[in-house]
Amino acid sequence: MTVRQLSLPELAEACRDTGVPGVGLWREPVQAYGVEAAAKLVRDAGLAVTTLCRGGFLTASDPAERSAALADNRRAVDEAAALGTDTLVLVSGGLPPGSRDLRGARERIADALAELGPYAGEHGVKLAIEPLHPMYAADRCVVSTLAQALDLAERFPAHQVGVAVDTYHVWWDDQAPAQIARAGAQGRIHTFQLADWTTPLPEGVLNGRGQIGDGAVDMREWKGYVEAAGYTGPIEVELFNDTLWTRDGREVLAETAARFAEHAG
Amino acid sequence: MTVRQLSLPELAEACRDTGVPGVGLWREPVQAYGVEAAAKLVRDAGLAVTTLCRGGFLTASDPAERSAALADNRRAVDEAAALGTDTLVLVSGGLPPGSRDLRGARERIADALAELGPYAGEHGVKLAIEPLHPMYAADRCVVSTLAQALDLAERFPAHQVGVAVDTYHVWWDDQAPAQIARAGAQGRIHTFQLADWTTPLPEGVLNGRGQIGDGAVDMREWKGYVEAAGYTGPIEVELFNDTLWTRDGREVLAETAARFAEHAG
Repeated sequence: MTVRQLSLPELAEACRDTGVPGVGLWREPVQAYGVEAAAKLVRDAGLAVTTLCRGGFLTASDPAERSAALADNRRAVDEAAALGTDTLVLVSGGLPPGSRDLRGARERIADALAELGPYAGEHGVKLAIEPLHPMYAADRCVVSTLAQALDLAERFPAHQVGVAVDTYHVWWDDQAPAQIARAGAQGRIHTFQLADWTTPLPEGVLNGRGQIGDGAVDMREWKGYVEAAGYTGPIEVELFNDTLWTRDGREVLAETAARFAEHAG
Repeated sequence: MTVRQLSLPELAEACRDTGVPGVGLWREPVQAYGVEAAAKLVRDAGLAVTTLCRGGFLTASDPAERSAALADNRRAVDEAAALGTDTLVLVSGGLPPGSRDLRGARERIADALAELGPYAGEHGVKLAIEPLHPMYAADRCVVSTLAQALDLAERFPAHQVGVAVDTYHVWWDDQAPAQIARAGAQGRIHTFQLADWTTPLPEGVLNGRGQIGDGAVDMREWKGYVEAAGYTGPIEVELFNDTLWTRDGREVLAETAARFAEHAG
């Protein structure tokens, strides 16, 4: 998503040229290119698929919507398995229209995981619940903290359900370091993502994630927390940023790799 | 602030006409009108001044800035006392430019409170640390949760330092109800404010607080938490909203009073 201006073949080539060994893919471009074709492309390029983003949106109370969401998440698991990644990132979903019941929405996620966790496990895919920043609690993700994500994940085996740790979403939270330790002790850190916090936030607050080093987040500090918790997996850089998307994608990828080396290498 | 388009005399008159018994004032319009004149105005109108907003901005590491901030906060205490309110709301301040040290900034607030708390207490004014939504952690307020605010407040007597509970800032936090109980048990709920959470957020995320009833917050639920915690003080409605500010202030005040009655009465 950091360089969504690149097509999948361009992305694979740019990763190879930049020495980036793995890539997190998003479902929409993969589906547009064809799942099997995308799988062959990254395999031939020697690229690891670190995660597939994203399943989730499991908070609907309407039975038909709920059933459709579960079916879509099973497809996402299938796609992850086909791409050769063991991790599917879940963004939980927001409040249904007109609802003010955060607790109920969070409980419906647990109900959905009881169906999806075993399905994912059977396909060799781990679900990673990603807490999103509290500013998304109403319209995008009712899971706002690592503590909440772990409270949900702990109801299931770690090889079925864990969490995604993204600096953009948790950097403000003084409880997050302890929750990272809790997640690590249980083998539930299923991915670690970096983005920086820059202000002012843009309208809608979706596409203002800062390039590594441009903002308020001490990347090395957070890398230290996940490493101390035993995490040895890939580190992804996931930037939603309107300005970065207007630039040449190869240049942005190279800049991102350089910033990563400088601030988190 | 909800009806900042009204002058202080217009506000006093509109409150009387609408049956609103008290008002939270902001320092800037009070200073522009004159503190003593404002005090006489509200006194003559029979209006209680529920709180003065706001002191704070105590995170500077530069000694001169820090000293200026402390002096300004002592003036704010004096103004609160002159206005006849016993509560000064504090917005802590964000990270100094270029800093990534949230913990250090939070600790400087404690240092400042050690000077300001006794001064406030001597003047019959309680300081209310207001945790702001985590989306303001970098540039406005490094205190993001009631738990953090109470950790700071507890170092001082309750008649010197407590917290402000604002639904807009804490509604997403599943730990907030327990923290409200903790604050209430210590006599540290120094004010309770309502605003609703509406999306999409505007650019800069400052002036998008929703009118009561328009958003995701169950006002009666939160009112229930503070009442169960023993809070019997005034309930303020504090809306920063560009659209409301373009409308007739008396109309907005009347609408707000009606919404309050409907959703929190």
